[in-house]
Amino acid sequence: MTVIKWNVRAGAYYDSVVLMQLQRGLLGLPGVADAGVVMATPANRDLLAANNLLPEAVTANPDDLLIVVKAESDASAEAAIGQVDELLARRKSSSVSQDFRPRSLSGAVKQLPEANWVLISVPGRYAAGVAREALELGKHVFLYSDNVSLEDEIALKKFAREKGLLVMGPDCGTAIINGIGLGFANRVRRGNIGVVGASGTGTQAVTAHIHELGGGISHAIGTGGRDLKSEVGAITAHQALDVLARDDQTKVIALISKPPSPNVATQLISAAQGTGKPVVIYFIGYPAPARKIGNLRFAISLSEAAELAVKIGDLRLETTKKSPISSLYLRGLFSGGTLAFEAMVGLQASLSPIYSNGPITPNQNLKDPLKSEAHSIIDLGDEFFMVGRLHPMIDNDLRIRRMKQEAADPEVGMILFDVVLGEGSHIDPAGELVPVIKEIREQRLVTSDLEFVAIVIGTSDDPQNLQSQVSVLEDAGVKVFRSTTEAMEYVSLRFSSKKKYEFTPVNLEQLKQSLAAINVGLESFYDSLTSQGAQAVHVEWKPPASGNEKMATLLAKMRK
Amino acid sequence: MTVIKWNVRAGAYYDSVVLMQLQRGLLGLPGVADAGVVMATPANRDLLAANNLLPEAVTANPDDLLIVVKAESDASAEAAIGQVDELLARRKSSSVSQDFRPRSLSGAVKQLPEANWVLISVPGRYAAGVAREALELGKHVFLYSDNVSLEDEIALKKFAREKGLLVMGPDCGTAIINGIGLGFANRVRRGNIGVVGASGTGTQAVTAHIHELGGGISHAIGTGGRDLKSEVGAITAHQALDVLARDDQTKVIALISKPPSPNVATQLISAAQGTGKPVVIYFIGYPAPARKIGNLRFAISLSEAAELAVKIGDLRLETTKKSPISSLYLRGLFSGGTLAFEAMVGLQASLSPIYSNGPITPNQNLKDPLKSEAHSIIDLGDEFFMVGRLHPMIDNDLRIRRMKQEAADPEVGMILFDVVLGEGSHIDPAGELVPVIKEIREQRLVTSDLEFVAIVIGTSDDPQNLQSQVSVLEDAGVKVFRSTTEAMEYVSLRFSSKKKYEFTPVNLEQLKQSLAAINVGLESFYDSLTSQGAQAVHVEWKPPASGNEKMATLLAKMRK
Repeated sequence: MTVIKWNVRAGAYYDSVVLMQLQRGLLGLPGVADAGVVMATPANRDLLAANNLLPEAVTANPDDLLIVVKAESDASAEAAIGQVDELLARRKSSSVSQDFRPRSLSGAVKQLPEANWVLISVPGRYAAGVAREALELGKHVFLYSDNVSLEDEIALKKFAREKGLLVMGPDCGTAIINGIGLGFANRVRRGNIGVVGASGTGTQAVTAHIHELGGGISHAIGTGGRDLKSEVGAITAHQALDVLARDDQTKVIALISKPPSPNVATQLISAAQGTGKPVVIYFIGYPAPARKIGNLRFAISLSEAAELAVKIGDLRLETTKKSPISSLYLRGLFSGGTLAFEAMVGLQASLSPIYSNGPITPNQNLKDPLKSEAHSIIDLGDEFFMVGRLHPMIDNDLRIRRMKQEAADPEVGMILFDVVLGEGSHIDPAGELVPVIKEIREQRLVTSDLEFVAIVIGTSDDPQNLQSQVSVLEDAGVKVFRSTTEAMEYVSLRFSSKKKYEFTPVNLEQLKQSLAAINVGLESFYDSLTSQGAQAVHVEWKPPASGNEKMATLLAKMRK
Repeated sequence: MTVIKWNVRAGAYYDSVVLMQLQRGLLGLPGVADAGVVMATPANRDLLAANNLLPEAVTANPDDLLIVVKAESDASAEAAIGQVDELLARRKSSSVSQDFRPRSLSGAVKQLPEANWVLISVPGRYAAGVAREALELGKHVFLYSDNVSLEDEIALKKFAREKGLLVMGPDCGTAIINGIGLGFANRVRRGNIGVVGASGTGTQAVTAHIHELGGGISHAIGTGGRDLKSEVGAITAHQALDVLARDDQTKVIALISKPPSPNVATQLISAAQGTGKPVVIYFIGYPAPARKIGNLRFAISLSEAAELAVKIGDLRLETTKKSPISSLYLRGLFSGGTLAFEAMVGLQASLSPIYSNGPITPNQNLKDPLKSEAHSIIDLGDEFFMVGRLHPMIDNDLRIRRMKQEAADPEVGMILFDVVLGEGSHIDPAGELVPVIKEIREQRLVTSDLEFVAIVIGTSDDPQNLQSQVSVLEDAGVKVFRSTTEAMEYVSLRFSSKKKYEFTPVNLEQLKQSLAAINVGLESFYDSLTSQGAQAVHVEWKPPASGNEKMATLLAKMRK
C-alpha cells in the first residue's frame, strides 16, 4: 500500500532547475517511492496521471506549483511534504561565481558593455518581454525559450530586422558564434562552413559530423523552428544567409530546416543562389528537387548535408550569362504524366506559386485544367482530356492548341514540353511542333522573351531518329535536354529571382568579435559560456511582480 | 467574319483515330479555319469553348459525337459539314494487313493460340469488359485504356491474381516483355535489369536512360498509376516483383512509382527486400528514406534510378542473421526534435502505421503524446512537455519514466533513443540511462525480445567524453549508431517483414516465350508489335450493340 500526499503553491514562480532539484530531493527522502514537482499545466497533469501521481482530489491551476509525493506510509508522505520548504531553501548554491549579480538586463550591460549577445531561457510567457528589452539595448538575441507566441516572434523579428539584429529562436536550441557554442552545441573546430539551422539538433548533428570529417564551422546561426513559416517569412534565415555571404571566412553555407512554406522556400532558394557561394540545402522530409541547381546542392540526410558541405569547399561555381526571366511565368505542357510530376518535384521549391492538374500537394491543384495560372505544369495525357481523343504522344493537336493559348499570354516567359519517342508514339513530333513554335515566334506581339525548352526521351534505336528530332528542335531555337533533372536545373536558374530581400544588414564585425554575452535564465548556459572561455554575465532574473501576471501587466503599462 | 456550323451524331461509336482523321480532313477543306470533332463530354466541350468552337446553341450529350466547323463563309461551313459522311467513309484504309480480321477475342485466340497477351486500348467504358474476357481466356492483359473505374480495376486484378495472370493497367502506357515493347516503349537493349513501373513515361525515361548508359532490360512490367493505392494494394506490383525475383535473367530490379499509400509502401518494401536482389526504388515526390537499406537503394530522380540500376549490377548483398522482430513495435524516445523528424523520414515508408507528435503528414499525428500507438516516435523536447520542466537533454527524468512505460508494453520490440552530447547538455546521459535499461531488462516479465538502439551525436572534443558514453551504452547491450541514417537502416531491417504476399505466381515461362499478342483497340499498337517482330492479331472490335449502352447491358445479362 502506498499513500499519496500533495501540496499546491499558487502563482509562485520557480525556475525549472529548482523544480528538478526539489523533485530529486523528495525522491531521496526515506519511504518516498515517487514524487512529482510540476507547474500544473494540463500536459503536466496528464504526465503525473500517467505515473500514477495524480489523485482525483487534486485541484490546481496551470500557474500553480503542484508537489506530489507517493510514499510507503502516511507518515513518510507527510514528512516529505513537510520538508518542501527546507528543500527549496537547501537548494544547492548557485554555480555562478560572479561577485556581483545584476538583477536586470540593463544592469548586466553596465557590467559587460562589450556583450553583443543576450541568451534568454526564462519561461515562455516572460521570454518575449526580455527579448524586446535586449533588442532595445541593441543586443542580438539567442532565444532558447519555447512556448512563445507566433505573434511575439513576428513582432520581435521585425523589430530586430530594422535594427540589424538577429533573433535566433524562439525554441532555438543551438548556435555557434565565432567558435563559442550557445545553448546546446558541440565542440567543433573552426573552419570555413557556415550553417543556418532552423532546427536545433539538426545543426548539432551536421556540425558534429563536419568536425568528424575534418571540416570546421565559421558560424552556425539558429533561427528557431517557425522562422520558415510564411507568417514569419524566414526573417532570421535571410539575415543569416546574408551575413554568411558577406563573411570572408565562410566559403560554404549549409542550410538545414524542416520543409518551409512554398513561398518562403522560393525566396530562400533565391537568396541562397544570390550568396554566390556553394550552399548545401537539406529540407528535411521534403523530396529533394535535384542533386544540384547552380551553386545549390541538395542533401537527403543530415549526414549527407555534412559530407557535401565538407566536399564542396573548392567547387568552382558556374555562372549564367543570360538575364533571368523571373518576372514571367513558366507553362509546362506534358504528354508524359510522370515527367510532368517529376517536373513539379523539381520546381515546387524554387517556383511559387506553381499549379498542376497532377499536383504533389493539394494546394498546388490547378482549378481548371484548361486554364493555366501563375507557373503551371499540365499533364495533357490526363484522363480528363482523354475521352474520345488520342493520347498527346500520338496526336499533337491538343498540345499545339494549348501552346498557342499559352503564348498569347504576355506573362508567359517559357514553354516547357516533353517529346517522348519510341514504339507507339507519333513518328515525327518535332516535325509537327516546330512549325507551330516558329509561327508563335513570328506572330507574338508582346515584346517579352518567350523561351521554348524540351525534354526529349528516347534512344538512338527508336523509330523516330532521336538525333534528327533533337536537331530539328535545336535548329528552331528550342533548348533541348535529355532528362527532367537537367531541364529542371536550367528552368530553376532561368527563373531565379535577383530581387534582394530588404533589411538592415547585420553588422558582420559583431560576429567576428570575441563573443561576450549576457545570460538570462538557465545557469548551465552561463557555465558553458565561461567554460568555453567567453566573457559572460548572468542576470539574477525574477519574473516581473514575482510572477503575478496581472501585476506585471500593470507595471509594464506604467513604464510606458 | 467567320461562321460556325455543327452536327451532332447521337450515341454513335467511333474510335479516336477515326475522330482525329475526320478533324484533319475537315481542316483540309477549302475555307475551313478550324474544326473540332469530339465526344461531347464536359471536358471536351470546355476544350471546344477554349478554342472558340462552341456556340451557345449547341446541345449534345456526353455520348454524342459533336462535329464543329469554323469557316470563312456560310457556304464553306455548310459544305464542310456536308462532307462528314464522305470523309468518314474515305478514312484511310487500315494499316492492318491481316488476311482475316477476327471480330472477337475468342476468334483471335483461335487464330493465334500461342498469344499469351492481350493489349486493350478501347474506350474506358468498354475496357473492363474486354479485359475480363481476356482473363477468362487465360491471357495476361496490357490495359492501356484510361477512364476505367477503380472498382473495375480491383475486381479485374483480384480475378487475375487468382489465375496467376497480370493486369498491367488501366492507364498503363508502357511495358517491355521479353524484348517487345507494348504500348509506348523505347527500343532498348535486352539485359539484366527488370523494371516495375507504376508510371508510364517514368518507365520510358528509366529504360531509355539505362540503354544509353550501356545497360539493358529483361522485362519492364507496368502496373497502372492506381495500383499502389491502398484500395488496390499493389496487386500487380507484387506479382511483378515476385516474377522478376524468380527470373534468372533479372539481376537488378528498379521500382518506379508515384508515392504509394503508406501501408502499401511498407508491404512493397518488404517484398522488395524479399527478392534477394538489389532493388532501386524511386517513389517520385516522396522524400528518400535513405540512400540504402540492405538490398534497397533509393533514387531521387528518374535518371538517378537508371544510373543506380546500371551501377549496382555486381553488388554483393549483405545478409542479416538475426531474426527480425517484425511482429512487434518500435518506440522512439527523442530529446532532439530534428532527429525525431529525420527518424520519421527514414521509417515512414518501411514501418506502418507509424505515429509521432512531430508528424510529417497529418495522418501520422499521435493523438496523445503521452501514449504511444503502434510504431511511435516521440519528441520529448516538444513544447507540450516543456512548461516548467528542463529539456530532456539536461534532465533525463521524463525519458526514464517513458522508457519504463514503453517497456511495460509486451508489443514493444525496440526502444530507440538519441544521446546528444555537447555544451549545455547533461554531463553523463549514458550514466543515467544505462541503469534504467538494465533494470528494465531484469524486470521485464514478457518473453519477447527488447532491443535498445541509440543515436549518439557528439564530437571527441565534447565535455562528456564521447568514447566513454558510447562504451557504457554498448557494454549495456545497446546498439549504438552515430547518425540517424545508419540507425534507420538498422531499424528498417530489423522490422522488415518476412511475411509473404499470397497469390498464385505468374508463370515465368510465359514471360520468356517469344511474345505473341492480340490487340484490341488502337491499330498503331498492332503495327508496332509486328514491326518489332512479334506475332500479333488485331481484333476488328466494335462496341457491344454498336455503343448503345442499354442494349449492351441487356446483351451481357442474356449471356449470363
